[in-house]
Amino acid sequence: MTEATYDVVAIGNAIVDVLANADAAFLAREGLVKGQMQLIDEERAKSLYAVMGEAQVTSGGSAANTLVGAAMMGASCRMIAQVAADQLGEVFVHDMHVQGIECPVPPREASVETGRCLILVSEEDGERTMNTFLGAAQFLPPDAIEEAVIASAKVLLLEGYLWDPLEPRAAMKRAIRIARDHGRKVALGVSATFCIMNHHADFTALLDAGDVDILFANQEEALALAQTDDVEAALAQLAAKVPLLVVTHGPEGAVAIEGGERATVTAEPVDKVVDTTGAGDLFSAGFLAGYVRGRSNADSLRMGAIAAAECIGHMGARPQTDLRHLIADRLD
Amino acid sequence: MTEATYDVVAIGNAIVDVLANADAAFLAREGLVKGQMQLIDEERAKSLYAVMGEAQVTSGGSAANTLVGAAMMGASCRMIAQVAADQLGEVFVHDMHVQGIECPVPPREASVETGRCLILVSEEDGERTMNTFLGAAQFLPPDAIEEAVIASAKVLLLEGYLWDPLEPRAAMKRAIRIARDHGRKVALGVSATFCIMNHHADFTALLDAGDVDILFANQEEALALAQTDDVEAALAQLAAKVPLLVVTHGPEGAVAIEGGERATVTAEPVDKVVDTTGAGDLFSAGFLAGYVRGRSNADSLRMGAIAAAECIGHMGARPQTDLRHLIADRLD
Repeated sequence: MTEATYDVVAIGNAIVDVLANADAAFLAREGLVKGQMQLIDEERAKSLYAVMGEAQVTSGGSAANTLVGAAMMGASCRMIAQVAADQLGEVFVHDMHVQGIECPVPPREASVETGRCLILVSEEDGERTMNTFLGAAQFLPPDAIEEAVIASAKVLLLEGYLWDPLEPRAAMKRAIRIARDHGRKVALGVSATFCIMNHHADFTALLDAGDVDILFANQEEALALAQTDDVEAALAQLAAKVPLLVVTHGPEGAVAIEGGERATVTAEPVDKVVDTTGAGDLFSAGFLAGYVRGRSNADSLRMGAIAAAECIGHMGARPQTDLRHLIADRLD
Repeated sequence: MTEATYDVVAIGNAIVDVLANADAAFLAREGLVKGQMQLIDEERAKSLYAVMGEAQVTSGGSAANTLVGAAMMGASCRMIAQVAADQLGEVFVHDMHVQGIECPVPPREASVETGRCLILVSEEDGERTMNTFLGAAQFLPPDAIEEAVIASAKVLLLEGYLWDPLEPRAAMKRAIRIARDHGRKVALGVSATFCIMNHHADFTALLDAGDVDILFANQEEALALAQTDDVEAALAQLAAKVPLLVVTHGPEGAVAIEGGERATVTAEPVDKVVDTTGAGDLFSAGFLAGYVRGRSNADSLRMGAIAAAECIGHMGARPQTDLRHLIADRLD
C-alpha cells in the first residue's frame, strides 16, 4: 500500500443550506416534525421556500460539512459530489475550494438545480428541522469515482443520505470495492433514522460483510440500526460488526468502541445553542481529523466535541472559528 | 392628496450580500481599503470571490435593507429594483416578500446576473469593506416606475448608489418628479462618499432645487457633500437646503435637524460589534418607521439607533430579531 495522498475522500450530497428561524406554529402549519429530516421534491422546495422567513444561504451537505471541518483541522480532503451548473452550485464549490478541498465532478448541465436543504431553526432551543431537495446531487454518476483517488485516501467517507438515489448508491458501492481492494478504511455516516428505515437491509449487509471500518451514528440511529430500544445492546451489537464505532448523544457526549475498548467524551459547554445544524457532521470532522493523525480515540472524540460545540453556537453548519486554533487551545 | 397606500416606496439596488471574514493581510493583498465601498465589474467579482473565504449569502442592497427594517417596524413598503432571472434574484425577491414587500419589476432575462456585494468583514472590529457588482440592478428601466405607486407613497426613498448607472438614474429622476407633483416626500440616502465624489453636482442640484425632503448621510458623507471639514458648518449648510437632515456618526450617535430644531441620540450599547454591514441602512429604517407614524424626531432617531444596534451584532444587514418588539421594549 502506497503512501496516502488524501486523508479523507468523501462521497456525499452537494447541498446548499437555506436557514431561517421558525416557531412551533410554523412547523405545525407546514406539517413538519421538529428535529426531523425529510426529502422533498422540487415543487415542495419552492412552496416551502415561499413561506419561510428571510433566510441565510450557506454551503451544507453532511459529508461536505465534515470535510470542511476536517480540512480546517489539518486533514487533506477531496469531495465527490454533483452540483448543477448554477449559482448555488458555484457557492458550494467555492466554499470547498477555499478550504483546499477539490470538487472534481463537473457541474451537471440540465434542468435540475443544485440541491438545497430548507432548514427551519427553532429559536428557543436551536433545534433544526430539515427539508432536503437533493436536486442535481441525486445524479452523481458511478463514473465520477476515480479509482486512483479512492485508492490514495486513508479514509473513504460515505454519506448515508446518498444511499437513497440509485446512481450515487452505485457510485458508493463502486468506491467501497476500490477502497477495500486497496486496503483503505471505509467510514459510513448513517445520516438519519429515515435513511436507516429505508435502507436497513443494505446497511446491515454492508456491516455484516465487513465493508465498514468506522461507523458514525447518533444514539437514535444506532438504536434504529440495531433494531432495539436498549442502548447497551445496540452498542454491543454494532461494535461486534465494525472495527470502530462512534456514537454521539447530543449534550450527553459520545462514545467510541474499538476492539472492545471504550472511550468516552462529555459534550463541550456551549454558551447558547443557536442552531444544531451540522453538529453531528462536525463531530465526525473532529474525530476523523484526529483519527487520520493517529491520535487516540479519546483525543479524537474530544476534537469531535470541540468542533461540534463551535458549530451549534451559530447559524449554519460550517465552522466560523479557526478550528485548528480551538483544538490547539483546548486539547490537553 | 389622497390617503397614502404605502408608507415608503424605495428605488434601489437588488443586491445579494456575500459575506466572509478577512484579515488586514487579505485586504492589503487585494488592494482594498478597509471600510470603503467600491464598484467592481463581473470579472473582478469572480476573481475576488475565488479568493474570499467561505461566505454567507444574505439579501442586501441599501434601500432594500432599509425597507425590510421599516416593514418589520410596521411600515408598509414596496421595492423597485431589478434582479436577473437567476437563483440569487429569487433569493432577493423571496426575502422581500416574506416581509410583505412586493418587488413588482420582472426579473431581467439576460446574460447579466443579479447584483452582488462581496463583503470582507474584519474580525477584530466588525468593519466591512464592500465590493459591489451591480449586475442586473444597473439596468432598472425608467418605465419600471409606476406613477400611481409613487403617487400613493408617503415617502419615496432613493438609494444614492443607483445614481451611477444611467437607466436607474433616469428612473429616479422620473420618480422624483412624480412624487413632487403629488406632494409626497422624497428621501435620499447618499450611500457612500464615492457616490458623492462622482455625483456631487447632481446631488447638490437636487438639494438646491428643493427636491429632497429628507437627507440621510453619515458624518463623512455630510462633510463630502458640503465640501468642508467642519462638521458644524456642514450640518448648517445642508440643513439650510433640506427640510429634514439626518446625520449619523457611528458609535457617537446621530442628529436630526428640522426647521432649525436639533434632536440627537446616542448610539445603543452593543455587546460585540460583529459586522457593521447595513448599520446605516437600518438606522434609516428605524428613523423612517418612526417618521411615517408621525413620531418626534427624537423618537425616530432612537428607533434608528435601536435598529442599527441590532444589525451590527450579527453577520449580515438584515435584522435577525423582531424589531417591533425590540422597539416596544426599549422606546420610552
